Amino acid sequence: MDLDRSPLALPFPAMPPIAGAKARIARAGYKAWGRCDLTYLEFAEGTAVAGVFTKNICCSSEVELGREQVKAGTARALVVNAGNSNAFTGYRGREAVEQIMGQVAAHLGCAPAEVFVSSTGVIGVPLPKDKAQAGVAAVLEAGECSWEDAAATISTTDTFAKGATATAVVGGTTVTLAAIIKGSGMIAPDMATMLGYIVTDAAVEPGFLQDLLSAANLRTFSCITVDSDTSTSDTVLAFATGKAANAPLASFDSPGADAFAAALHDVCLQLAKLVVRDGEGAQKFVTVDVTGAVSDDSARRIGLAIANSPLIKTAIAGEDANWGRVVMAVGKAGEPADRDRLSIGFGGIWAAKNGQPLADYDEAPVAAHLKGREIDISVDIGLGDGRATVWTCDLTHGYIAINADYRS
Amino acid sequence: MDLDRSPLALPFPAMPPIAGAKARIARAGYKAWGRCDLTYLEFAEGTAVAGVFTKNICCSSEVELGREQVKAGTARALVVNAGNSNAFTGYRGREAVEQIMGQVAAHLGCAPAEVFVSSTGVIGVPLPKDKAQAGVAAVLEAGECSWEDAAATISTTDTFAKGATATAVVGGTTVTLAAIIKGSGMIAPDMATMLGYIVTDAAVEPGFLQDLLSAANLRTFSCITVDSDTSTSDTVLAFATGKAANAPLASFDSPGADAFAAALHDVCLQLAKLVVRDGEGAQKFVTVDVTGAVSDDSARRIGLAIANSPLIKTAIAGEDANWGRVVMAVGKAGEPADRDRLSIGFGGIWAAKNGQPLADYDEAPVAAHLKGREIDISVDIGLGDGRATVWTCDLTHGYIAINADYRS
Repeated sequence: MDLDRSPLALPFPAMPPIAGAKARIARAGYKAWGRCDLTYLEFAEGTAVAGVFTKNICCSSEVELGREQVKAGTARALVVNAGNSNAFTGYRGREAVEQIMGQVAAHLGCAPAEVFVSSTGVIGVPLPKDKAQAGVAAVLEAGECSWEDAAATISTTDTFAKGATATAVVGGTTVTLAAIIKGSGMIAPDMATMLGYIVTDAAVEPGFLQDLLSAANLRTFSCITVDSDTSTSDTVLAFATGKAANAPLASFDSPGADAFAAALHDVCLQLAKLVVRDGEGAQKFVTVDVTGAVSDDSARRIGLAIANSPLIKTAIAGEDANWGRVVMAVGKAGEPADRDRLSIGFGGIWAAKNGQPLADYDEAPVAAHLKGREIDISVDIGLGDGRATVWTCDLTHGYIAINADYRS
Repeated sequence: MDLDRSPLALPFPAMPPIAGAKARIARAGYKAWGRCDLTYLEFAEGTAVAGVFTKNICCSSEVELGREQVKAGTARALVVNAGNSNAFTGYRGREAVEQIMGQVAAHLGCAPAEVFVSSTGVIGVPLPKDKAQAGVAAVLEAGECSWEDAAATISTTDTFAKGATATAVVGGTTVTLAAIIKGSGMIAPDMATMLGYIVTDAAVEPGFLQDLLSAANLRTFSCITVDSDTSTSDTVLAFATGKAANAPLASFDSPGADAFAAALHDVCLQLAKLVVRDGEGAQKFVTVDVTGAVSDDSARRIGLAIANSPLIKTAIAGEDANWGRVVMAVGKAGEPADRDRLSIGFGGIWAAKNGQPLADYDEAPVAAHLKGREIDISVDIGLGDGRATVWTCDLTHGYIAINADYRS
């Protein structure tokens, strides 16, 4: 099935090269398709790495290994296989990953544990070792490619290539971040796993890079949802080559640490929103702002209950300002709330306050807002200072078509 | 929007009268429709009552009051309003409920707290007191009606009337249970709340009736899901008139208590499955059997994670034996599981065992099974003795059409 480009797609941004990092692509032929499907990033010696991974306990070998590898804190290369997720493939799947790690490590003269591997695509089929070996051999000989080529090559069912960039001034030195991501929900037979990679020339100590990535993740990738389902392979890795030659960032006491943290958060947020914009069947991009919860965590959980509600997502698809469904979702979130303090609005206009519909509620501007592509839902819980923003898309016939009508 | 009768509908069963209970219907005109929309059940003095209610904390006044009323343990009447859920309507909604309780109590000469009220339909609009008053006056003068008429009158967007019956021999006396239910998911602008009522002529102490209903609820109503959304009004009440004149059941030490418990469980299970059979857009009835979990509770939570997964529900709609999505759902359930011990089957045929696809897996009979109306998914976690069965339906274009295309 060829998918149309999402109506919410954004153009690929102008992305600068990152000193100390090179990208290459090749065709391993994991599926019967004519495109490149193996992406290789090579990093200078001493590159720091950090990662966040799916919480799905039935995760892939790539994720199991990656979780261990990031602890050592350094990376020399990344290989991303598209078309086969290698998940639920037992020891044979693990052997294929270890083969790739060994092959690249031999080429670079590094430890296999410095070679990271991700795979995305059909599950239950061990990654074919012969195709992986030939693909890796080819990619090591390939010329450098653009970030856009790399973003396209890690994609599976994405309808557009996704990238983001930012800069920060760190102790007088400008550092640059370039990042790519793929994912659009989870689409069978390819699970449209979210795989994201952030590369920067900044010098950052691995432990601090991990702290910053984990913090950014909590307010970006952990605040998006397409269909509430969780891939077995979701991975976001950050690589810092250090080639900008700033004084290495080791903590928030390091000059420029705040600026770098903000830039990292910025690219994570850009990437996360791009995934929502490619949500399966998405016609509308939905921002859910929750305020007045008892804590930020509570606000995030309420926001996700709203963003995951099929009834709210279908109401948005139907351009229906159905605040009753929002009440329902708040009530089922399992978080402190009080029906009679609850306020709900759309597009900046309150429809209900303190548990009752507003007498002078004017639905006309709300109806106009709901006809647009960018929908804002505001919920005030009325109990405290906790707040969070969550992003999702609507639930449409397109989602059913992609997931039910498409047969493996 | 007129909805077609569900392809999974069952005929209304032959339902016997219950001594000590009478049903009547009338037209309150809560909506601009030509049908009866107010249902009244009257019970003999001394009727015991028990109830289970939605866990949604943004619940309706009817639910708040009902939770208190069941604690006293006796009931004389039930009024069910269809077309207006009276939820999220503040003090005005509560006044309307109290008015109905007072009006019926005056007629019967009982305490208002012995009059139970449920409402289902549009939310955010206080139940109109004038219509309620006239409707109650009319129903108190109406002749008796059949269980099928009562089942049809409590319905909102249901596509068929739902009833169940069972008998049990208690200390040599045959007791009878008759039960009706409405609900088909939650459909805007009417939230298709689940409202269920079980009436028996058995003599049962209220506390024991509550224990039995709570236990049955855990394995029946709490094991079904249509779209993971939770109504603000869900209510199941059980009424025991005692007119069968058995020695009152007070505990499992009472003769016949086991038989009565089994019959109560049976009608609850019948009702629960009927709700799934009327799930919005449902084309297939799905039974998820989970075994080998660390506990029954854990098995139920895993089963619900599977049954609520949009990706699994769309795969079933697409007749795709996508066991990878089942792996994903097990992994995200937040319960103990081990990818390499997991087994998954469809229609009694294992597709994957111990974390890997079976080498000799024959998809042909599985594909045939998936073309049917009744789909069985088996999951063995491989860790313990916990087991549970959960019921759901597929996720189809019909669900989107009902919830997105239909405007309030």
